[in-house]
Amino acid sequence: MLPYKLIYFNMRGRAELSRYILAYAQIPFKDQRVEWKDWPFVKSSFPLEQLPVLEMEGCLLNQSLAIARFLAKEAGLAGKDRLEEAQADALVDSLNDFTLCIPWREEDQKLKKEKIDKLFDCHAPKLLSFLEKHLEDRDWLVGDAVTWADLYWHVCFTTFTVLRPGFARHHQGLCTLINRVESIPQLARWIQNRPVSEF
Amino acid sequence: MLPYKLIYFNMRGRAELSRYILAYAQIPFKDQRVEWKDWPFVKSSFPLEQLPVLEMEGCLLNQSLAIARFLAKEAGLAGKDRLEEAQADALVDSLNDFTLCIPWREEDQKLKKEKIDKLFDCHAPKLLSFLEKHLEDRDWLVGDAVTWADLYWHVCFTTFTVLRPGFARHHQGLCTLINRVESIPQLARWIQNRPVSEF
Ligand SMILES: [Mg+2]
Ligand SMILES: [Mg+2]
Repeated sequence: MLPYKLIYFNMRGRAELSRYILAYAQIPFKDQRVEWKDWPFVKSSFPLEQLPVLEMEGCLLNQSLAIARFLAKEAGLAGKDRLEEAQADALVDSLNDFTLCIPWREEDQKLKKEKIDKLFDCHAPKLLSFLEKHLEDRDWLVGDAVTWADLYWHVCFTTFTVLRPGFARHHQGLCTLINRVESIPQLARWIQNRPVSEF
Repeated sequence: MLPYKLIYFNMRGRAELSRYILAYAQIPFKDQRVEWKDWPFVKSSFPLEQLPVLEMEGCLLNQSLAIARFLAKEAGLAGKDRLEEAQADALVDSLNDFTLCIPWREEDQKLKKEKIDKLFDCHAPKLLSFLEKHLEDRDWLVGDAVTWADLYWHVCFTTFTVLRPGFARHHQGLCTLINRVESIPQLARWIQNRPVSEF
Protein backbone atom coordinates (compact mmCIF):
# COMPACT_ATOMS: atom_id res chain seq x y z
CA MET A 1 0.00 0.00 0.00
CA LEU A 2 1.27 3.50 -0.82
CA PRO A 3 2.10 5.68 2.20
CA TYR A 4 0.11 8.67 0.96
CA LYS A 5 -3.26 9.07 -0.71
CA LEU A 6 -3.99 12.59 -1.93
CA ILE A 7 -7.69 13.09 -2.58
CA TYR A 8 -8.93 16.01 -4.70
CA PHE A 9 -10.97 16.79 -7.78
CA ASN A 10 -9.80 16.04 -11.32
CA MET A 11 -7.93 19.31 -11.71
CA ARG A 12 -4.70 21.01 -10.59
CA GLY A 13 -6.38 23.52 -8.29
CA ARG A 14 -5.52 23.39 -4.62
CA ALA A 15 -3.82 19.97 -4.76
CA GLU A 16 -1.23 20.61 -7.44
CA LEU A 17 1.39 22.08 -5.11
CA SER A 18 1.34 18.89 -3.03
CA ARG A 19 1.56 16.80 -6.21
CA TYR A 20 4.65 18.79 -7.29
CA ILE A 21 6.28 18.21 -3.90
CA LEU A 22 5.56 14.46 -4.00
CA ALA A 23 6.84 14.27 -7.58
CA TYR A 24 9.97 16.24 -6.67
CA ALA A 25 10.74 13.91 -3.78
CA GLN A 26 9.84 10.85 -5.86
CA ILE A 27 7.46 9.70 -3.14
CA PRO A 28 4.93 7.31 -4.71
CA PHE A 29 1.36 8.33 -3.87
CA LYS A 30 -2.18 7.52 -4.85
CA ASP A 31 -3.50 10.52 -6.81
CA GLN A 32 -7.20 9.94 -6.18
CA ARG A 33 -9.55 12.19 -8.13
CA VAL A 34 -13.21 12.53 -7.17
CA GLU A 35 -15.62 13.14 -10.05
CA TRP A 36 -18.01 16.07 -9.62
CA LYS A 37 -21.01 13.77 -10.05
CA ASP A 38 -19.88 11.68 -7.05
CA TRP A 39 -18.97 14.60 -4.79
CA PRO A 40 -22.46 15.23 -3.26
CA PHE A 41 -22.54 11.60 -2.08
CA VAL A 42 -19.09 11.47 -0.51
CA LYS A 43 -18.44 15.00 0.74
CA SER A 44 -19.78 14.42 4.24
CA SER A 45 -16.96 11.95 4.89
CA PHE A 46 -14.29 14.69 4.61
CA PRO A 47 -13.30 17.31 7.23
CA LEU A 48 -15.39 20.46 6.71
CA GLU A 49 -16.68 18.85 3.48
CA GLN A 50 -13.60 20.09 1.65
CA LEU A 51 -10.81 18.75 -0.52
CA PRO A 52 -7.87 18.25 -0.80
CA VAL A 53 -7.28 15.75 1.96
CA LEU A 54 -4.13 13.73 2.58
CA GLU A 55 -4.69 10.27 3.96
CA MET A 56 -1.75 8.66 5.75
CA GLU A 57 -1.41 6.03 8.45
CA GLY A 58 -5.18 6.08 8.83
CA CYS A 59 -5.28 9.78 9.60
CA LEU A 60 -6.85 12.50 7.44
CA LEU A 61 -5.08 15.84 7.09
CA ASN A 62 -7.11 18.70 5.61
CA GLN A 63 -6.23 22.19 4.31
CA SER A 64 -4.19 22.39 1.11
CA LEU A 65 -1.34 24.46 2.51
CA ALA A 66 -1.06 22.44 5.73
CA ILE A 67 -0.78 19.32 3.57
CA ALA A 68 1.79 20.91 1.27
CA ARG A 69 3.89 22.24 4.15
CA PHE A 70 3.90 18.81 5.81
CA LEU A 71 5.05 17.20 2.56
CA ALA A 72 7.59 19.98 1.94
CA LYS A 73 9.24 19.14 5.27
CA GLU A 74 9.34 15.45 4.32
CA ALA A 75 10.85 16.40 0.95
CA GLY A 76 13.45 18.83 2.31
CA LEU A 77 11.71 21.71 0.53
CA ALA A 78 10.55 23.75 3.53
CA GLY A 79 13.70 25.86 4.03
CA LYS A 80 16.93 25.10 5.87
CA ASP A 81 16.21 26.91 9.16
CA ARG A 82 13.30 28.63 10.95
CA LEU A 83 13.82 31.94 9.22
CA GLU A 84 13.88 30.35 5.77
CA GLU A 85 10.78 28.32 6.67
CA ALA A 86 9.02 31.53 7.67
CA GLN A 87 10.09 33.32 4.48
CA ALA A 88 8.80 30.43 2.36
CA ASP A 89 5.54 30.44 4.36
CA ALA A 90 5.11 34.18 3.79
CA LEU A 91 5.73 33.86 0.03
CA VAL A 92 3.30 30.96 -0.23
CA ASP A 93 0.62 32.90 1.69
CA SER A 94 1.16 35.98 -0.46
CA LEU A 95 0.71 33.94 -3.65
CA ASN A 96 -2.27 32.21 -2.08
CA ASP A 97 -3.94 35.51 -1.17
CA PHE A 98 -3.86 36.41 -4.86
CA THR A 99 -5.43 33.10 -5.93
CA LEU A 100 -8.16 33.66 -3.32
CA CYS A 101 -9.02 36.94 -5.05
CA ILE A 102 -9.76 35.19 -8.35
CA PRO A 103 -13.58 35.26 -8.75
CA TRP A 104 -13.86 31.52 -9.47
CA ARG A 105 -17.54 31.36 -8.55
CA GLU A 106 -18.77 34.50 -10.29
CA GLU A 107 -21.47 33.27 -12.66
CA ASP A 108 -21.97 36.50 -14.61
CA GLN A 109 -19.29 36.00 -17.29
CA LYS A 110 -19.00 39.69 -18.16
CA LEU A 111 -18.58 40.67 -14.52
CA LYS A 112 -16.12 37.79 -14.02
CA LYS A 113 -13.93 39.07 -16.83
CA GLU A 114 -14.04 42.61 -15.40
CA LYS A 115 -12.99 41.36 -11.98
CA ILE A 116 -10.14 39.28 -13.42
CA ASP A 117 -8.96 42.23 -15.50
CA LYS A 118 -8.94 44.48 -12.46
CA LEU A 119 -7.04 41.88 -10.46
CA PHE A 120 -4.31 41.54 -13.08
CA ASP A 121 -4.16 45.26 -13.90
CA CYS A 122 -4.16 46.60 -10.34
CA HIS A 123 -2.95 43.87 -8.01
CA ALA A 124 -0.65 41.58 -9.99
CA PRO A 125 2.05 44.27 -10.48
CA LYS A 126 2.35 44.68 -6.71
CA LEU A 127 2.67 40.92 -6.18
CA LEU A 128 5.22 40.54 -8.98
CA SER A 129 7.37 43.38 -7.59
CA PHE A 130 7.26 41.81 -4.15
CA LEU A 131 8.36 38.43 -5.54
CA GLU A 132 11.08 39.94 -7.68
CA LYS A 133 12.42 41.94 -4.75
CA HIS A 134 12.66 38.69 -2.78
CA LEU A 135 14.41 36.93 -5.62
CA GLU A 136 16.96 39.70 -6.23
CA ASP A 137 19.62 38.14 -8.44
CA ARG A 138 19.57 34.76 -6.75
CA ASP A 139 18.51 31.43 -8.25
CA TRP A 140 15.64 30.64 -5.85
CA LEU A 141 13.12 32.66 -3.85
CA VAL A 142 14.42 31.61 -0.41
CA GLY A 143 18.09 31.08 0.48
CA ASP A 144 20.26 29.25 -2.02
CA ALA A 145 18.18 26.14 -2.76
CA VAL A 146 14.78 25.28 -4.17
CA THR A 147 11.85 25.40 -1.70
CA TRP A 148 8.12 24.78 -1.98
CA ALA A 149 7.73 28.55 -2.52
CA ASP A 150 9.45 28.17 -5.92
CA LEU A 151 7.19 25.24 -6.78
CA TYR A 152 4.10 27.23 -5.77
CA TRP A 153 5.26 30.10 -7.99
CA HIS A 154 5.27 27.63 -10.89
CA VAL A 155 1.82 26.27 -9.97
CA CYS A 156 0.38 29.79 -9.72
CA PHE A 157 2.18 31.01 -12.85
CA THR A 158 0.60 28.18 -14.83
CA THR A 159 -2.93 29.07 -13.71
CA PHE A 160 -2.49 32.85 -13.88
CA THR A 161 -1.22 32.44 -17.45
CA VAL A 162 -4.52 30.80 -18.42
CA LEU A 163 -6.35 33.88 -17.10
CA ARG A 164 -3.92 36.50 -18.42
CA PRO A 165 -1.35 35.19 -20.91
CA GLY A 166 2.02 36.90 -20.52
CA PHE A 167 1.11 38.48 -17.18
CA ALA A 168 4.71 38.20 -15.91
CA ARG A 169 6.62 38.76 -19.14
CA HIS A 170 8.29 41.97 -17.96
CA HIS A 171 9.73 40.22 -14.92
CA GLN A 172 12.76 38.48 -16.33
CA GLY A 173 13.98 37.00 -13.04
CA LEU A 174 10.61 35.43 -12.29
CA CYS A 175 10.37 33.98 -15.82
CA THR A 176 13.86 32.51 -15.50
CA LEU A 177 12.74 30.94 -12.22
CA ILE A 178 9.85 29.26 -14.08
CA ASN A 179 12.37 27.68 -16.47
CA ARG A 180 14.60 26.67 -13.57
CA VAL A 181 11.71 24.85 -11.83
CA GLU A 182 10.70 23.15 -15.09
CA SER A 183 14.28 21.96 -15.56
CA ILE A 184 14.13 19.78 -12.47
CA PRO A 185 13.79 16.36 -14.16
CA GLN A 186 11.21 14.89 -11.75
CA LEU A 187 9.01 17.98 -12.14
CA ALA A 188 9.44 18.05 -15.91
CA ARG A 189 8.20 14.46 -15.99
CA TRP A 190 5.24 15.23 -13.75
CA ILE A 191 4.21 18.28 -15.77
CA GLN A 192 4.49 16.31 -19.01
CA ASN A 193 2.53 13.29 -17.81
CA ARG A 194 -0.12 14.72 -15.46
CA PRO A 195 -3.80 14.65 -16.42
CA VAL A 196 -4.66 17.69 -18.53
CA SER A 197 -7.14 20.22 -17.11
CA GLU A 198 -7.67 23.95 -17.63
CA PHE A 199 -7.26 24.82 -13.93
CA MET B 1 16.85 46.91 21.86
CA LEU B 2 14.06 44.37 21.85
CA PRO B 3 14.56 41.39 19.52
CA TYR B 4 11.11 41.66 17.93
CA LYS B 5 8.99 44.56 16.75
CA LEU B 6 5.46 43.59 15.73
CA ILE B 7 3.86 46.30 13.61
CA TYR B 8 0.08 46.40 13.13
CA PHE B 9 -2.92 48.67 13.55
CA ASN B 10 -4.38 49.59 16.96
CA MET B 11 -6.63 46.53 17.15
CA ARG B 12 -6.41 42.79 17.82
CA GLY B 13 -7.16 41.74 14.25
CA ARG B 14 -4.53 39.75 12.41
CA ALA B 15 -1.73 40.46 14.90
CA GLU B 16 -3.36 39.23 18.09
CA LEU B 17 -2.36 35.59 17.64
CA SER B 18 1.31 36.59 17.45
CA ARG B 19 0.87 38.82 20.51
CA TYR B 20 -0.61 35.86 22.43
CA ILE B 21 2.35 33.67 21.44
CA LEU B 22 4.89 36.31 22.49
CA ALA B 23 3.02 36.87 25.77
CA TYR B 24 2.85 33.11 26.40
CA ALA B 25 6.60 32.71 25.86
CA GLN B 26 7.30 35.89 27.84
CA ILE B 27 9.37 37.24 24.99
CA PRO B 28 9.58 41.03 25.32
CA PHE B 29 8.55 42.78 22.08
CA LYS B 30 7.73 46.21 20.77
CA ASP B 31 3.98 46.28 20.10
CA GLN B 32 3.99 49.08 17.53
CA ARG B 33 0.55 50.31 16.48
CA VAL B 34 0.10 52.44 13.37
CA GLU B 35 -2.71 54.99 13.51
CA TRP B 36 -5.14 54.96 10.57
CA LYS B 37 -4.39 58.61 9.84
CA ASP B 38 -0.70 57.80 9.35
CA TRP B 39 -1.18 54.63 7.29
CA PRO B 40 -1.45 56.25 3.83
CA PHE B 41 1.95 57.87 4.36
CA VAL B 42 3.83 54.81 5.58
CA LYS B 43 2.18 51.88 3.79
CA SER B 44 4.56 51.84 0.84
CA SER B 45 7.41 50.88 3.16
CA PHE B 46 5.81 47.51 3.99
CA PRO B 47 5.77 44.31 1.87
CA LEU B 48 2.64 44.30 -0.32
CA GLU B 49 1.49 47.40 1.63
CA GLN B 50 0.09 45.13 4.31
CA LEU B 51 0.32 44.65 8.06
CA PRO B 52 1.15 42.87 10.32
CA VAL B 53 4.89 42.76 9.82
CA LEU B 54 7.47 41.34 12.20
CA GLU B 55 10.78 43.15 12.26
CA MET B 56 13.76 41.19 13.56
CA GLU B 57 17.49 41.35 12.98
CA GLY B 58 16.90 43.96 10.30
CA CYS B 59 14.60 41.67 8.30
CA LEU B 60 10.88 42.16 7.71
CA LEU B 61 8.59 39.14 7.77
CA ASN B 62 5.07 39.61 6.37
CA GLN B 63 1.87 37.52 6.45
CA SER B 64 0.13 37.14 9.80
CA LEU B 65 0.16 33.34 9.90
CA ALA B 66 3.76 33.01 8.70
CA ILE B 67 4.73 35.38 11.53
CA ALA B 68 2.65 33.49 14.09
CA ARG B 69 3.99 30.09 12.98
CA PHE B 70 7.58 31.35 13.21
CA LEU B 71 6.95 32.66 16.74
CA ALA B 72 5.06 29.47 17.70
CA LYS B 73 8.17 27.43 16.86
CA GLU B 74 10.32 29.79 18.97
CA ALA B 75 7.80 29.44 21.82
CA GLY B 76 7.45 25.65 21.63
CA LEU B 77 3.80 26.02 20.60
CA ALA B 78 3.97 24.58 17.08
CA GLY B 79 3.42 20.90 17.91
CA LYS B 80 5.87 18.24 19.07
CA ASP B 81 6.49 16.48 15.73
CA ARG B 82 5.72 16.98 12.03
CA LEU B 83 2.30 15.42 12.22
CA GLU B 84 1.28 17.60 15.17
CA GLU B 85 2.66 20.65 13.38
CA ALA B 86 0.54 19.79 10.36
CA GLN B 87 -2.57 19.23 12.47
CA ALA B 88 -2.09 22.59 14.18
CA ASP B 89 -1.54 24.22 10.76
CA ALA B 90 -4.77 22.69 9.43
CA LEU B 91 -6.78 23.86 12.44
CA VAL B 92 -5.36 27.36 12.19
CA ASP B 93 -6.16 27.52 8.45
CA SER B 94 -9.69 26.23 9.05
CA LEU B 95 -10.32 28.93 11.66
CA ASN B 96 -8.70 31.48 9.40
CA ASP B 97 -10.91 30.52 6.45
CA PHE B 98 -13.92 31.38 8.61
CA THR B 99 -12.52 34.79 9.59
CA LEU B 100 -11.88 35.50 5.90
CA CYS B 101 -15.60 34.96 5.24
CA ILE B 102 -16.59 37.74 7.63
CA PRO B 103 -17.74 40.66 5.43
CA TRP B 104 -15.51 43.23 7.18
CA ARG B 105 -15.61 45.67 4.27
CA GLU B 106 -19.33 45.51 3.45
CA GLU B 107 -20.52 49.09 3.76
CA ASP B 108 -24.26 48.40 3.50
CA GLN B 109 -25.00 47.74 7.19
CA LYS B 110 -28.20 45.81 6.53
CA LEU B 111 -26.51 43.54 4.01
CA LYS B 112 -23.51 43.17 6.35
CA LYS B 113 -25.78 41.92 9.14
CA GLU B 114 -27.48 39.48 6.75
CA LYS B 115 -24.14 38.08 5.62
CA ILE B 116 -22.91 37.71 9.20
CA ASP B 117 -26.16 36.00 10.20
CA LYS B 118 -25.85 33.57 7.32
CA LEU B 119 -22.23 32.83 8.21
CA PHE B 120 -23.06 32.04 11.82
CA ASP B 121 -26.29 30.18 11.03
CA CYS B 122 -24.99 28.04 8.14
CA HIS B 123 -21.20 27.77 8.41
CA ALA B 124 -20.28 28.14 12.08
CA PRO B 125 -21.98 24.84 13.09
CA LYS B 126 -19.79 22.94 10.62
CA LEU B 127 -16.62 24.58 11.92
CA LEU B 128 -17.59 23.99 15.55
CA SER B 129 -18.30 20.30 14.92
CA PHE B 130 -14.96 19.93 13.16
CA LEU B 131 -13.12 21.54 16.07
CA GLU B 132 -15.00 19.52 18.65
CA LYS B 133 -14.29 16.30 16.79
CA HIS B 134 -10.59 17.16 16.88
CA LEU B 135 -10.72 17.94 20.57
CA GLU B 136 -12.59 14.76 21.54
CA ASP B 137 -12.26 14.50 25.32
CA ARG B 138 -8.71 15.78 25.44
CA ASP B 139 -7.45 18.99 27.05
CA TRP B 140 -5.96 20.60 23.93
CA LEU B 141 -6.73 20.57 20.21
CA VAL B 142 -3.48 18.88 19.17
CA GLY B 143 -1.70 16.14 21.10
CA ASP B 144 -1.46 16.51 24.86
CA ALA B 145 -0.12 20.04 25.23
CA VAL B 146 -1.13 23.57 24.33
CA THR B 147 -0.29 24.73 20.76
CA TRP B 148 -0.86 27.92 18.80
CA ALA B 149 -4.06 26.33 17.47
CA ASP B 150 -5.57 26.57 20.98
CA LEU B 151 -4.46 30.19 21.24
CA TYR B 152 -5.99 30.98 17.84
CA TRP B 153 -9.25 29.40 18.94
CA HIS B 154 -9.28 31.89 21.84
CA VAL B 155 -8.45 34.81 19.54
CA CYS B 156 -11.21 33.83 17.11
CA PHE B 157 -13.72 33.02 19.87
CA THR B 158 -13.25 36.53 21.27
CA THR B 159 -13.97 38.20 17.93
CA PHE B 160 -16.76 35.83 16.85
CA THR B 161 -18.46 36.50 20.22
CA VAL B 162 -18.62 40.23 19.38
CA LEU B 163 -20.42 39.34 16.14
CA ARG B 164 -22.66 36.60 17.57
CA PRO B 165 -22.73 36.39 21.38
CA GLY B 166 -22.98 32.81 22.60
CA PHE B 167 -22.23 31.30 19.18
CA ALA B 168 -20.40 28.34 20.75
CA ARG B 169 -22.46 27.86 23.89
CA HIS B 170 -23.69 24.39 22.94
CA HIS B 171 -20.13 23.14 22.50
CA GLN B 172 -19.09 22.40 26.06
CA GLY B 173 -15.63 21.07 25.20
CA LEU B 174 -14.73 24.13 23.16
CA CYS B 175 -15.98 26.46 25.91
CA THR B 176 -13.93 24.60 28.50
CA LEU B 177 -10.91 25.04 26.21
CA ILE B 178 -11.50 28.80 26.25
CA ASN B 179 -11.31 28.76 30.05
CA ARG B 180 -8.23 26.57 29.93
CA VAL B 181 -6.40 29.03 27.64
CA GLU B 182 -7.45 31.97 29.82
CA SER B 183 -6.10 30.18 32.87
CA ILE B 184 -2.54 30.31 31.56
CA PRO B 185 -1.18 33.11 33.78
CA GLN B 186 0.87 34.91 31.12
CA LEU B 187 -2.14 34.96 28.77
CA ALA B 188 -4.52 36.05 31.53
CA ARG B 189 -2.19 38.98 32.20
CA TRP B 190 -1.98 39.89 28.49
CA ILE B 191 -5.74 39.73 28.02
CA GLN B 192 -6.32 41.86 31.10
CA ASN B 193 -3.76 44.52 30.23
CA ARG B 194 -3.89 44.78 26.43
CA PRO B 195 -5.27 47.91 24.73
CA VAL B 196 -9.05 47.65 24.41
CA SER B 197 -10.55 47.50 20.92
CA GLU B 198 -13.74 46.04 19.46
CA PHE B 199 -11.93 43.81 16.95
MG1 LIG C 1 -7.18 26.79 2.70
MG1 LIG D 1 -2.73 36.30 5.12
